[in-house]
Formats: sequence, C-alpha cells, structure tokens
Amino acid sequence: IPLSRTVRCSCIKIDDRPVKPRALGKLEIIPASQSCPRVEIIVTMKKTEEKRCLNPESEAIKSLLKMVSKKRSKRAP
Amino acid sequence: IPLSRTVRCSCIKIDDRPVKPRALGKLEIIPASQSCPRVEIIVTMKKTEEKRCLNPESEAIKSLLKMVSKKRSKRAP
Repeated sequence: IPLSRTVRCSCIKIDDRPVKPRALGKLEIIPASQSCPRVEIIVTMKKTEEKRCLNPESEAIKSLLKMVSKKRSKRAP
Repeated sequence: IPLSRTVRCSCIKIDDRPVKPRALGKLEIIPASQSCPRVEIIVTMKKTEEKRCLNPESEAIKSLLKMVSKKRSKRAP
C-alpha cells in the first residue's frame, strides 16, 4: 500500500485584516512543502498571543516584510 | 522599586551561513521590542529541525523573504 500524503496545513482560515506592526509579536513563514501545498504566514499578536493566519499575497504582509528587512539596514544605494 | 527591564533575546549568536530555500522548514521573525532591542530571525531547518539565528541585514535573508512574498503572486504591474 503506498503511503498516502496527508495534507497538514497549519492554517484553516485566512484572516485578511491588516496587522499593525506594533501589535506584532512574531511572524512565522512556513514555505510550501509536501505536507502543505501553500506558503503559510502565521502571526502571533504581542499582547494577546492570539495567532492569525495571513494571506501571503496581501499588501499588508508585503509591507510588514519590507519593514523588517529594511530595519536597521542603512546603506548607500 | 521600578521593574527592571531584563533583556531577553532569543538569539545568542548569529549564523551567517546562507540557508537554502529548500532546506527551510520555518522562518520566524521577531520584531524588536522591549524585551529584545533587535529584530531576530530564526529559521528551523526542515529535516534536522535545527534552529539557526540569521542576520536580518544579510542578503540571504532578503532574498528568502523576497522569494516568499513573490510566491504565487502573479499580477500585472
């Protein structure tokens, strides 16, 4: 019997509400893999420790990621 | 007595070796906060589940983040 590849994504539903950078405690990116065919982005809110799954294609995520990667990297162009 | 703000960063040392996107199991971004003054990026390797702290300013991280945020977002400019 061939092993079935069970799909095990972490996110059940995607929350499209924007997340304020200040409220963000942690941002997890789980790349697509054999266990889940899509990229998953899970944020943990700082105060409540509530977890939310975000849409990787949303503008909110893109600006969050940009913010983080730009942080403290001041360089000449 | 005022509460002292103890510094509690997750990363002790930063690993500058590049991470292959395929080997990446999870990428965590922890923004700077009162408990740790710097952005921390922790990757978990897929097979070994080994955790590594990466330099947020490294090119390796920037391209990893770009890869993820570009994934499946095909749009007209």
